[in-house]
Amino acid sequence: MNAPVSAIERLQLELPELDWITDPNRIERLSQDFSWFSPVLKRRLEGKVADTVVRPRTEDEIRRLVAACAKLKLPLTIRGSGTGNYGQTTPLAGGVVLDMTGYNAMLWVRPGVARAQAGIRLAEIEKATRPGGQELRCLPSTYRSATLGGLFGGGFGGVGSINHGPLGAPGNVIGLKAMTIEPEPQVVELRGAEALRMHHLWGTNGLVLELEIALAPAQPWLETLATFTGFDAALAFADALARAPGLAKREVAFFASPVPDHLTQLAEHLPRGCHAVLSLVAEAGEEAMNELVAAHGGSVTYRRTAEDVAKSNRTLMEYTWNHTTLHALRVDKGLTYLQTSFTPGEHVRQITELAKRYEGEVLMHAEFLRTMDGLLTCSALQLVRFSTEERLAQIIREHRDYGVRINDPHTFIVEDGKAGGELPEEVVALKRRFDPLALLNPGKLRHWPVRSAP
Amino acid sequence: MNAPVSAIERLQLELPELDWITDPNRIERLSQDFSWFSPVLKRRLEGKVADTVVRPRTEDEIRRLVAACAKLKLPLTIRGSGTGNYGQTTPLAGGVVLDMTGYNAMLWVRPGVARAQAGIRLAEIEKATRPGGQELRCLPSTYRSATLGGLFGGGFGGVGSINHGPLGAPGNVIGLKAMTIEPEPQVVELRGAEALRMHHLWGTNGLVLELEIALAPAQPWLETLATFTGFDAALAFADALARAPGLAKREVAFFASPVPDHLTQLAEHLPRGCHAVLSLVAEAGEEAMNELVAAHGGSVTYRRTAEDVAKSNRTLMEYTWNHTTLHALRVDKGLTYLQTSFTPGEHVRQITELAKRYEGEVLMHAEFLRTMDGLLTCSALQLVRFSTEERLAQIIREHRDYGVRINDPHTFIVEDGKAGGELPEEVVALKRRFDPLALLNPGKLRHWPVRSAP
Repeated sequence: MNAPVSAIERLQLELPELDWITDPNRIERLSQDFSWFSPVLKRRLEGKVADTVVRPRTEDEIRRLVAACAKLKLPLTIRGSGTGNYGQTTPLAGGVVLDMTGYNAMLWVRPGVARAQAGIRLAEIEKATRPGGQELRCLPSTYRSATLGGLFGGGFGGVGSINHGPLGAPGNVIGLKAMTIEPEPQVVELRGAEALRMHHLWGTNGLVLELEIALAPAQPWLETLATFTGFDAALAFADALARAPGLAKREVAFFASPVPDHLTQLAEHLPRGCHAVLSLVAEAGEEAMNELVAAHGGSVTYRRTAEDVAKSNRTLMEYTWNHTTLHALRVDKGLTYLQTSFTPGEHVRQITELAKRYEGEVLMHAEFLRTMDGLLTCSALQLVRFSTEERLAQIIREHRDYGVRINDPHTFIVEDGKAGGELPEEVVALKRRFDPLALLNPGKLRHWPVRSAP
Repeated sequence: MNAPVSAIERLQLELPELDWITDPNRIERLSQDFSWFSPVLKRRLEGKVADTVVRPRTEDEIRRLVAACAKLKLPLTIRGSGTGNYGQTTPLAGGVVLDMTGYNAMLWVRPGVARAQAGIRLAEIEKATRPGGQELRCLPSTYRSATLGGLFGGGFGGVGSINHGPLGAPGNVIGLKAMTIEPEPQVVELRGAEALRMHHLWGTNGLVLELEIALAPAQPWLETLATFTGFDAALAFADALARAPGLAKREVAFFASPVPDHLTQLAEHLPRGCHAVLSLVAEAGEEAMNELVAAHGGSVTYRRTAEDVAKSNRTLMEYTWNHTTLHALRVDKGLTYLQTSFTPGEHVRQITELAKRYEGEVLMHAEFLRTMDGLLTCSALQLVRFSTEERLAQIIREHRDYGVRINDPHTFIVEDGKAGGELPEEVVALKRRFDPLALLNPGKLRHWPVRSAP
């Protein structure tokens, strides 16, 4: 009889009742996300893999796992469905990947609020809220598979952010329950601003068990594509539609030519070479929107009512945000992307100038949204024809010099991505409180040591 | 036997089945609105009274009345409940006042849209839409008595405009049915931009029979007052609350001291000398709002849930917009008011500077709303301690010189009020088409002759 040789084996022997994933192919897959959108991350994350993956089903299972990992000083990387793009769920130091998708109960739905376990898929939340006339405020294009905890831990917002801003805008996330990573794990409820200190930190400063989020009243959304022969007319239409306070909407995206040519599943609705605007507008606004399309010389080439969408289970939402990039990568492996925030009020000029400056190399795809301060602007997820890492870094530098913000999607260091610099003191304090042994997702925070699995 | 001596008498003899109001006191009352808020209008409209008032109940009755008036060349002034403030329903040339409040059926409610006859009270629309989870997008503080046609013909927006902008923003009014004023009246459906050419023209360019309007999904609104010791803190809180994209809201109003001291019915919640912010925020946002109040050093002094409001049938909405003025006038007859639009993004500075400049004479009350272009700003309905008409005119002039827009509420000429100048060609074209005999509300359009009742 062989004695256990590694901490991982000891862990598994100690907790045999947990759902351990041992197949190396599955472990490899569950150590990854969509970081392959970036050739830089693809290279840097090559071969980074967990020693094991575990999928707990109850808070008690999570508690036993965490206690044992803390005692054994085993690195713990939390993941949802792995729809992120920054390698945030790839363990740099091996250890345990904690797959939260088995911890997925809807807890309750009330007027304007819902609470669920972190591993629930976003689509499941909407299934629970729609009968009562409510929907998610912000959802990524990956909402079918993405989890609530994953959105909170590594997401930004998405469809709906044109109304409610990023997920991190006060009021969107109301509270959460989190566990400390200690031999005797504590379970703590955080509310409001305090809860947001765990947002977009890739599970480095706490293990989120439950989330309480604000909901929006559901509306019947008309999904349309409007196409234009000119860049300026298409962008002006998108901006006017996004601004119009009398036109309720959930999503407005602008695809400059040749981005639409990459959306092959919609090819019959996107004349080759067109500029296109994808939108979800409340059905009651159709006539007013059509007047606006006509005033800008465009044509509505695709139109599905809310009922059409529900029946077909096909939605244009799955062509927005980073799904645009996904569709484009399917037809052109030579592409990667950028993430750019424009200056509210200057966004149309900035988009126009930058699209022109990098014509043929950086292809403009912009999403309309409100900032944390409620101002209408765009974020772009431009497609980039990749040549070298140096050229990519140069493009990023030039964009920054031009005066727009780049949320670099080619780094796996929290501080170098969207956080854009040092972490606020209160976030660091939360890290110390919830992860005193520095076991969570080691290597993702610049100033914490990477401790490999013992 | 005496032959009829006047056109009015002939009209009444011709249509005996109509509901004629003949009591002189009632005729006098039905010739007025709330223009007594303005000492200027009060003086100028003194003694202006209809020869008769009629209250039709069906489209057919309206048609017969209109046909007969056209044949007899009788001036026709349309009114709802008379909650306007510009004397828009006071007949300058006598004739017939057409009281639309008897023509008040709800026609239908669909997801996001409702259609009703013009004389319906706004509160009745909400009674019909609330069970299905919908509410009005914009409603004046007078919504209990104000009619839909009156809001369209002489109103602006109000509560809800912080989301949907003014009523005139494309998408809020979807269509209408209107009648031409001719011996053979035509009934015409106008949609979208064309329908809006009859908006805020005080019934001078068409008789609106039905309106089709967009609805908002209803939300449970928490009604609160937050009070502050400092002007700047109160205004900063109001602005932050108004902007916050994660805090769903229906109304944010700012009352600088000493405005709250005039709201005597709320006195127990408004410490003497306080600055106050009145808001309707979605209940789900209460915690985030409370954090914002605390961050600005304020206190929540009044709090009613949506259920409290529904049960008591008392709402803070009836202290907003021009109801503030009404409450203040009840305790101080020496007051009148202004209507001011600020520059989006400059509104906090402008409000602060103007409040200081006219301290003690012009008392700041600002309402947050979105512009037609979707930008967040304020409109003020400042209380003015009235001294002379010359001084009032000077204050208005100085505000304009300072760089803010005054929508003069002391005039009964359409072009001199909110329209702010000449009417667009297409509005004039609609006037010619719908009122070829120039019988509608004569004297309110600068360039049309006043034709007195024959």
